[in-house]
Amino acid sequence: MNKLEFISKQLSRAQKKPFEHYVITRIWHLLNDLSLKFITQQYISRPIGRALTDMYFPQLGIHIEINEPHHLNQEEQDKLRQIDIINATNHRILTVHTIYKEPLTGEKKYLEIDEIHHQINNVVEIISCEKNKILEFEPWDLHKEQNSQTYIDKGFISLSDNVVFRTSLDAINCFGYTHKNFQKGGINHLYRTNTFIWFPKLYKSYKRGWDNKLSDDELTLIEKTISPTDLSRHVDRIMNSKVYNRIIFVQSKSPLGDIMYRFKGEYVLDTSETNSKVGLVWKRISDKVETYKPRIKPI
Amino acid sequence: MNKLEFISKQLSRAQKKPFEHYVITRIWHLLNDLSLKFITQQYISRPIGRALTDMYFPQLGIHIEINEPHHLNQEEQDKLRQIDIINATNHRILTVHTIYKEPLTGEKKYLEIDEIHHQINNVVEIISCEKNKILEFEPWDLHKEQNSQTYIDKGFISLSDNVVFRTSLDAINCFGYTHKNFQKGGINHLYRTNTFIWFPKLYKSYKRGWDNKLSDDELTLIEKTISPTDLSRHVDRIMNSKVYNRIIFVQSKSPLGDIMYRFKGEYVLDTSETNSKVGLVWKRISDKVETYKPRIKPI
Repeated sequence: MNKLEFISKQLSRAQKKPFEHYVITRIWHLLNDLSLKFITQQYISRPIGRALTDMYFPQLGIHIEINEPHHLNQEEQDKLRQIDIINATNHRILTVHTIYKEPLTGEKKYLEIDEIHHQINNVVEIISCEKNKILEFEPWDLHKEQNSQTYIDKGFISLSDNVVFRTSLDAINCFGYTHKNFQKGGINHLYRTNTFIWFPKLYKSYKRGWDNKLSDDELTLIEKTISPTDLSRHVDRIMNSKVYNRIIFVQSKSPLGDIMYRFKGEYVLDTSETNSKVGLVWKRISDKVETYKPRIKPI
Repeated sequence: MNKLEFISKQLSRAQKKPFEHYVITRIWHLLNDLSLKFITQQYISRPIGRALTDMYFPQLGIHIEINEPHHLNQEEQDKLRQIDIINATNHRILTVHTIYKEPLTGEKKYLEIDEIHHQINNVVEIISCEKNKILEFEPWDLHKEQNSQTYIDKGFISLSDNVVFRTSLDAINCFGYTHKNFQKGGINHLYRTNTFIWFPKLYKSYKRGWDNKLSDDELTLIEKTISPTDLSRHVDRIMNSKVYNRIIFVQSKSPLGDIMYRFKGEYVLDTSETNSKVGLVWKRISDKVETYKPRIKPI
């Protein structure tokens, strides 16, 4: 995937919302800056609840919201659980209004196109300005950001870098592994005997029998099987294993519909809260974990 | 419908072709000129055959073609018959390439995004330049172009103006009528006893029993019923009526899916070619017809 593919697919979403779509394409084309990355329809985790923003610039922490009102219905709420969600603290949200209320009748009307253009010019100016404020701005490098080597060189993976891998193989190879293929739901850490690298699905998976849940503040992940008897056995097994630390990359759907693996930090088992009814309760202890160079195997 | 609605709906088409879509939105936003009208996915009638262009600027007669190769299959060919088609002579077609062939392997590859941006910059420059060449450029006025009064004031309707009405009522009110509602397939001309104002459907309509056909060069329209016995009766009726002139607005689908009424000129019945097998053969005699002020009824 090159930038053209990534960007054009991002822009061609929001197909059923022509106004939102108009605003997003205009912001991008007028910005005219290939060093900026953006994502459309990004869910963010706020201190309370979750929200969908229409366009997100991860290098700047800026979200664009286009105020065609949409309410989440139950079906959408359910979908939310399997969608990629980023943790947003100190992010800034800019709003572009497309409708206004007639002062006399209270009727909702669409703004004229030049009034919307005016707002978009302002947004474009703010984004360029915020970019220039960053002293060591790192231009968007699609290849680099999806490559294990980037994080090995850095020495760590951090929540604030919004690390998203396209495969779980890319994730495990940040920790000394030199695998060519990897399909499992997790693997033991090479250097830390108490730690497991884990790729949980966050949605109810009847096929596999899991029903995991991440809290809105992302500090707690509850691991649970659907079947109560399975759960009791699973809880016992993990409690006895003494492998109480987990480096977690959640499986979620990319904006393009592919499965991807987003780093969520290191969690530790809360043995006091864990039981065969609640499930395994994992609590975040770090938003940063050490990475390792490929291990050289002895001949 | 205001310009925002018109434009944003145009841009949100081509949903399944993200590259085409990227190019179209970029051309529009970089042009940044609300005096220019454009239409996406416009079919044009060429001296031989018909073609689809991805973006069309009617004031300039410029089409943009984005070279993601697509071949028309039979189903698409059939659909073609009910789609809005404009007559294009002396139109200019600009092409934006998104793919290239590897010189060594012959493999098709997508161009890099900055190479596509470079081509789009050129297209935008050509369009602006062509607009400036027009001495009396008429800015796009959506309301004006769909209003009968515009053509009454002008004194005529001409093919070269690409006149498209949203209702058949708008069309008949260009010829002296002051109707408030109109639903029929045509009406007699108020001032010319030999002339009928006609709104034929150009696709096979089993419900109504018609199968009319407009030739590719648009000089001949053949009016035919599906049932042979109906046809024989209909041909006799028209031949005996002596109403041999028709001002034609074809019914077709707008880019947004609505039915609309495009002016095609004045046609006359070719009585020598017409018979109960071929159908009624109408030949174009003029690409311009006179319009009339609303008739004042005597009290």
